Amino acid sequence: MKGAGGAEATPVPPSEGRRIAPVLGRPRPDSRASARTGWLRRVAGRVAAVATLVERLGYTADARLLIITCENLGCAHATNVGAYDVLRAGVGTSASLMVPCPWAREAAAAYRGEDVGVNLTLNAPFERYRWGPITLAPSLLDGDGGFPRTANDLWDHADTDEVRRECRAQIERAILWGFDVNHLGTQLDALNARPEFFDVYLELATEFELPLRLQSGDSEPAYGFPFRRRAAEHGVLSPDRVLRPRTAEVLEQALAEIEPGVTELVVNPAIETPELRAAYPGWNDWASQHELLVDAASIPKLLERTGVTRIGYRALRDAQTASRA
Amino acid sequence: MKGAGGAEATPVPPSEGRRIAPVLGRPRPDSRASARTGWLRRVAGRVAAVATLVERLGYTADARLLIITCENLGCAHATNVGAYDVLRAGVGTSASLMVPCPWAREAAAAYRGEDVGVNLTLNAPFERYRWGPITLAPSLLDGDGGFPRTANDLWDHADTDEVRRECRAQIERAILWGFDVNHLGTQLDALNARPEFFDVYLELATEFELPLRLQSGDSEPAYGFPFRRRAAEHGVLSPDRVLRPRTAEVLEQALAEIEPGVTELVVNPAIETPELRAAYPGWNDWASQHELLVDAASIPKLLERTGVTRIGYRALRDAQTASRA
Repeated sequence: MKGAGGAEATPVPPSEGRRIAPVLGRPRPDSRASARTGWLRRVAGRVAAVATLVERLGYTADARLLIITCENLGCAHATNVGAYDVLRAGVGTSASLMVPCPWAREAAAAYRGEDVGVNLTLNAPFERYRWGPITLAPSLLDGDGGFPRTANDLWDHADTDEVRRECRAQIERAILWGFDVNHLGTQLDALNARPEFFDVYLELATEFELPLRLQSGDSEPAYGFPFRRRAAEHGVLSPDRVLRPRTAEVLEQALAEIEPGVTELVVNPAIETPELRAAYPGWNDWASQHELLVDAASIPKLLERTGVTRIGYRALRDAQTASRA
Repeated sequence: MKGAGGAEATPVPPSEGRRIAPVLGRPRPDSRASARTGWLRRVAGRVAAVATLVERLGYTADARLLIITCENLGCAHATNVGAYDVLRAGVGTSASLMVPCPWAREAAAAYRGEDVGVNLTLNAPFERYRWGPITLAPSLLDGDGGFPRTANDLWDHADTDEVRRECRAQIERAILWGFDVNHLGTQLDALNARPEFFDVYLELATEFELPLRLQSGDSEPAYGFPFRRRAAEHGVLSPDRVLRPRTAEVLEQALAEIEPGVTELVVNPAIETPELRAAYPGWNDWASQHELLVDAASIPKLLERTGVTRIGYRALRDAQTASRA
């Protein structure tokens, strides 16, 4: 595996990373950082790794960057149409593929080089529409031959070696299908919320040199372990915060209030079909999000007015890779 | 396993079975059969097993019996609605469930005691909509983690022990879900067309005491082995012939020309949905069949005029079980 120890070799306590002035930006009035100027010059190449994310992406520290990630690519025909509609309308900037789902091959067949990552999938949450692992993984099955419906059920009996093998197979299959995979995500938070599963998540991000979709930093106390610091220690990038609006109304409001830094806005566009209605009781929210997000005129205008720049996960992947070069 | 040798113990060459007059019916003017009257009385209990199927079902030898089997139950939401529509309109008389498919659990949730069997499923023929085995069966996977798309691909690398285990799991799961399973079928003819796979098919029919959906007898020469004779030797029943009309027009014509004996008419009703259109290029035939078959007024009237009686697979299962009692 490449690059697993980049940040570990840097003699800076990880907790102080954010307090050190970026070399390429304007020095901050931070006395501790100023006192270390000589040291800073010596490790200049590495210090870029602790600049704020927007700066590493080539923007000023107060920039408002936004990734609009369409979830559920591959999950159903309705979500495939939804995700590609929103990407091709120029509003969405990324999509997260669920490789083991019944319609993943349609997503592959329709792919035209869009910004896509893999949403590592270890659950099948719908009661009446199901799927299962693509590897031989007895510990990842529920009694019905598919993935368990909930993350709790998964955590109760998933073997982490089988999790690793299944997740790696999902990434490799997406690559084999022709996707230019540029991030990893985790369905239902399964790989983010438990330390032993997070180890697998981080290991795969390091191995494939990909950014991770992580929960916002302010949720770390509730999770009980410093997953963001651990990702940073391994040189793995992630947006600064994540928003998951459920309804179209909340989504519209979120778009109007994007803060400085890199925000990921997770959306679930889907066309309304009989299958979607039968599979998911919340189908109406997904269909409303779709309607809002395919409006290619108003959303880009709104974001321009509020000074928000849309980016994809490719930018994060490139910055992550560059820091290892 | 019960009753695997019923017919074998009877000293009648299987090929002559149909020429022997049924004990409970009117004797036919057949000199060979008349000459054996004394012998016939001695084995009367067993001879019932070689009466024609319609007679075993309690009808006269010239009766025209028709099973209208809806395929693809469980395959997709569109086919679930299609199959239950046609069953509940009173036109369809049976349905064949595909347990490993993504929508099988919806079919289970919607079940209200209809006449249902298990269409043993070892393939996933659609290019963009996929599913895989419910057991750990490496030899039943294609390179993409699901079932192979064609029967030829399956036959090339399927281990018969894994086939048996997967098929048994499908039957047991259907029973667990609450289905009163009353027949076995085989998707894409996979278990009918090759002797080594037919062994598994017949073994499961014997074990679970279920009738089999088999190809018509006139196709035996092309198949190269006497599958119907083998089923009969094991006391396993099957309709006398099977019709698979593709278009609604051919289906309508088939309904008007049902011959004496037990005919199985295999239909593929499905509602038209975006998913079905995306999954299956021939969706229009399925939707047209659905439109024709939900017309509960005209088809029963047509069948009544031509003297056709509709039955389900339960009648066959009951006759098969009774012969073992």
